[in-house]
Amino acid sequence: MEAQQPQHPYFPRSMSMPHYQPSQFSAIESLLTVGGSAFAVGLLAVFLIGRTKTPLTCKDKFVAIWMMVSAGIHMVLEGYFVYHNRDLAGMQTVMADLWREYSHSDSRYLTSDPFTVIMEGVTAVCDGPFAALTAYGVLTDSPVRYVAQLIVSVMQLYGNVLYMLTNAFEGFAYSNPHPYYFYGYFVFMNAIWVVIPIYLIHDAWTNIYRGMLIAKRATTVTKKSQ
Amino acid sequence: MEAQQPQHPYFPRSMSMPHYQPSQFSAIESLLTVGGSAFAVGLLAVFLIGRTKTPLTCKDKFVAIWMMVSAGIHMVLEGYFVYHNRDLAGMQTVMADLWREYSHSDSRYLTSDPFTVIMEGVTAVCDGPFAALTAYGVLTDSPVRYVAQLIVSVMQLYGNVLYMLTNAFEGFAYSNPHPYYFYGYFVFMNAIWVVIPIYLIHDAWTNIYRGMLIAKRATTVTKKSQ
Repeated sequence: MEAQQPQHPYFPRSMSMPHYQPSQFSAIESLLTVGGSAFAVGLLAVFLIGRTKTPLTCKDKFVAIWMMVSAGIHMVLEGYFVYHNRDLAGMQTVMADLWREYSHSDSRYLTSDPFTVIMEGVTAVCDGPFAALTAYGVLTDSPVRYVAQLIVSVMQLYGNVLYMLTNAFEGFAYSNPHPYYFYGYFVFMNAIWVVIPIYLIHDAWTNIYRGMLIAKRATTVTKKSQ
Repeated sequence: MEAQQPQHPYFPRSMSMPHYQPSQFSAIESLLTVGGSAFAVGLLAVFLIGRTKTPLTCKDKFVAIWMMVSAGIHMVLEGYFVYHNRDLAGMQTVMADLWREYSHSDSRYLTSDPFTVIMEGVTAVCDGPFAALTAYGVLTDSPVRYVAQLIVSVMQLYGNVLYMLTNAFEGFAYSNPHPYYFYGYFVFMNAIWVVIPIYLIHDAWTNIYRGMLIAKRATTVTKKSQ
């Protein structure tokens, strides 16, 4: 008798995934579909930036685009994963194809890994709306902007650090070691949601600190002049 | 041949824990040691509150005490778990005894569960210092107070929600169903770090929003008068 071969291409090779079905779309097709959708959300952000009367710096424009694209990814793409997590490995949709493609870099997305499902659930339900609120705050120059930016960026960073380190803790057992999957998908794509949130936490921290200092002085002056 | 009985009292009963050793101190002794230490940190906070020249409201005093006690728990108790996670089940110290006692409500603390170790590592390294910084911000009336309060409270809430829901996702398989352990330890103790962070996120949000509004008006007035 021969040893039974796994019926899926994922790591660890010993993992059971009885409901796995191969994708019908190619990796390029599903990546282009999602990339194109993200680009369309970015274009919507550019359109809204063009219409607002709030004077925006380059950084403000970047934050508005980033937060709108993030909100779309969190609520639609990650929300889809959370909703369908138990069936995803065998579904025939372009979104399931995309998750099957990404899962080469982390198979926990196809096995309803508890941490992955719960973390993505919080991301879809909380990070998504707060990212949209931040974009709204930028476009309307609302005092809500930096506080929302701080919350969403702390949550993105914390979620991603837990996500990457739990895989690292098990020796990247869930990742295909091929550089395209490991560095291209797992490291590079996730590093985006580490580096930019750190920058935006620093930005929010600086602006809130300055604002609270001005507010404190303004309140002291008002009290003295009364 | 009889079926082999597990050599430990934890759930799930089928779990392997070869390095487990029973505690030498009683549950009361280890709970009193940690409770007493937390109380001592609270007393230190009260002492510092008495010495500061900053006028503090009741809420400010509560935040200072809460953040100092939190910082102590995050850095010492949870830090100890992270540092010793691989050996904890068999160690003979009062801190290991306490973790063995708490682990009746969640055995993941005795098996180096990847999510639990990484989440607690982030809590010890990030939440602890930010909680201490918040207490410092309260005592010195620093503009850093609410931004630090927001960061630590978002992280405490997020970490705790992930922690509780990942256990729930697996049907509380890691918890002893006895009400004392399940409701007394798992639900009640963790609910503290859900309810208070929500209150402090709301408090920080309100104060930062108001501060940013005052700062915006103050800056507009300054610009107009130039």
